[in-house]
Amino acid sequence: MAIEIPSPEAVNAFFAREFPSAHAARYRCEETGPGVAVARWPYDAAQLRPGSLISGPTQFALADLAFWFMTFSVVGLAPMAVTSELYIVFLRPAAGADLIARAELLRAGKTKITGSVRLWVDGAPDRPVSHVTGSYVHIK
Amino acid sequence: MAIEIPSPEAVNAFFAREFPSAHAARYRCEETGPGVAVARWPYDAAQLRPGSLISGPTQFALADLAFWFMTFSVVGLAPMAVTSELYIVFLRPAAGADLIARAELLRAGKTKITGSVRLWVDGAPDRPVSHVTGSYVHIK
Amino acid sequence: MAIEIPSPEAVNAFFAREFPSAHAARYRCEETGPGVAVARWPYDAAQLRPGSLISGPTQFALADLAFWFMTFSVVGLAPMAVTSELYIVFLRPAAGADLIARAELLRAGKTKITGSVRLWVDGAPDRPVSHVTGSYVHIK
Amino acid sequence: MAIEIPSPEAVNAFFAREFPSAHAARYRCEETGPGVAVARWPYDAAQLRPGSLISGPTQFALADLAFWFMTFSVVGLAPMAVTSELYIVFLRPAAGADLIARAELLRAGKTKITGSVRLWVDGAPDRPVSHVTGSYVHIK
Repeated sequence: MAIEIPSPEAVNAFFAREFPSAHAARYRCEETGPGVAVARWPYDAAQLRPGSLISGPTQFALADLAFWFMTFSVVGLAPMAVTSELYIVFLRPAAGADLIARAELLRAGKTKITGSVRLWVDGAPDRPVSHVTGSYVHIK
Repeated sequence: MAIEIPSPEAVNAFFAREFPSAHAARYRCEETGPGVAVARWPYDAAQLRPGSLISGPTQFALADLAFWFMTFSVVGLAPMAVTSELYIVFLRPAAGADLIARAELLRAGKTKITGSVRLWVDGAPDRPVSHVTGSYVHIK
Repeated sequence: MAIEIPSPEAVNAFFAREFPSAHAARYRCEETGPGVAVARWPYDAAQLRPGSLISGPTQFALADLAFWFMTFSVVGLAPMAVTSELYIVFLRPAAGADLIARAELLRAGKTKITGSVRLWVDGAPDRPVSHVTGSYVHIK
Repeated sequence: MAIEIPSPEAVNAFFAREFPSAHAARYRCEETGPGVAVARWPYDAAQLRPGSLISGPTQFALADLAFWFMTFSVVGLAPMAVTSELYIVFLRPAAGADLIARAELLRAGKTKITGSVRLWVDGAPDRPVSHVTGSYVHIK
């Protein structure tokens, strides 16, 4: 049975209901597709690090969220998928605009969903600032 | 030349000055030693996930911070060390009390500091909720 | 029901039967205990890299094996546990003697066993050459 | 100054000279390009695991090698780049034919080269068996 891929609007409504505090931090889903999701962190000067840098934890949080949104195209809109392990490597300083994260499915197993996430600063998709690989576990 | 290991009070004063927004999130340094640092996230019900769980990004942020505090025992109190890569594996649900992270040095190289971080919920140090390994790069 | 922890001799006999080619490469189990296993790679000059270094793949293979031996104390002597993901970080050059790997359990879940492995050159246990964290999946 | 990208033949000649034992294991470079390299492990029934599976260490060794070949397009033909850390996630059983690994550059920094590697069994490039992310350090 094919899973219906939820629209970004459906994802954001679900997200606001399930994770009100993270949603309040202004992360958003922007795109969904088969084995794909894009999330955005709207630039917020109040959360920057010295040197006006977007912090590692902000990048991790957005990557984790994009990955979770991507799992919806595999298991449907469900809060049941939890992060199992993630590896993040930082590639260059992130600064100056919104942060974008694009998650892609590598493999959907019976209980484990593996994927990767590429992050960049809006306007420079060819200059990734970090890269994540990892897996979620889902309990149906 | 030996580095003087800063006290937790010195670390927290430095942290408040350098990262006011993260400091405002109430993360704190609690212990320092040679190649060791302990950080605490005071329980905050407003930031929990469904099921009253302490989120993955909160755990990552605390681990990253404990690691940074630990680098001070290698390079001194300096904002120059940045996260290079981190691998986090989640071991069990985290809930119900403060989160504690203990970072330990694995190796201090010329430009790279490698270490691991163990996280647990206050009161249950023998039941880690997550484990981090990774490296910081420091520019003297 | 408690699992009986197999002796190093029982592990090596099982290993020789199940993985004849890896066993032929002279890797051995040396110690077992609850949530612990130690494996050894006997020094072999024919397999070294330029500079007489013990290669990364040799270290990975030994770590993977020590981890597998460690899973026997959780699930018993069974070939059913397979590597799910491993993160290896190299700490210093490895040279001059046998390689030792000590695997320790972090968490045994229903289907996933998480652990870490520390590797050193025989005689220098306080100078780890690499460190591994990761997980095995077991199917009962 | 642009680096001249060595041909697969030049890479294999260099590899045979620098790493005779690994070369003897029949790993080969098959393709090179800007920020890209493809390596092959010719199927060898004598090295399989129970169930006729291509082992994790064989996959790790091939990925590490493809990554190393890829660094030549950044720093030229030099043995000076060493693995710093690698994360490998296994996606599905690998069996039945040659193993292929394609390494791609994520970022070339001053001393650190970050990249990812996708591995598949020959004939099934759309069904990756494992995925690696990590970094090499090079000393000019």
